[in-house]
Amino acid sequence: MKDLAIQFGSKLRDKRKALGISQDKMALLAEVDRSYAGRIERGEVNITLEKAYQLAEVLECDIRELLP
Amino acid sequence: MKDLAIQFGSKLRDKRKALGISQDKMALLAEVDRSYAGRIERGEVNITLEKAYQLAEVLECDIRELLP
Repeated sequence: MKDLAIQFGSKLRDKRKALGISQDKMALLAEVDRSYAGRIERGEVNITLEKAYQLAEVLECDIRELLP
Repeated sequence: MKDLAIQFGSKLRDKRKALGISQDKMALLAEVDRSYAGRIERGEVNITLEKAYQLAEVLECDIRELLP
């Protein structure tokens, strides 16, 4: 299941970059710690469904776009 | 965001019942405690993305079907 976090993180990063938002700004908007945002993008953490929705909201996309 | 857990739990329960699987069996297959499975269905817990995928796998569906 480790792949899941990696794939989610990778899609999240791609989406964020496509929008031209910095990791710091995304972290701020999604109310997560800056270092935690980096860990999410690297697939190092198993985030909650709620946090995944929050991130999708910040990136103005449907959560389905971020899922593997 | 509490609604999210409630909606997910409700969709999970509907899907499980449609398949004729008991809550106990789902819990066993998804490797969660029986009481925890009940709490998920009632939307009392904020589950991880990984657990949501595991539950979708047990119910042989795409996780997108279970998401609000």
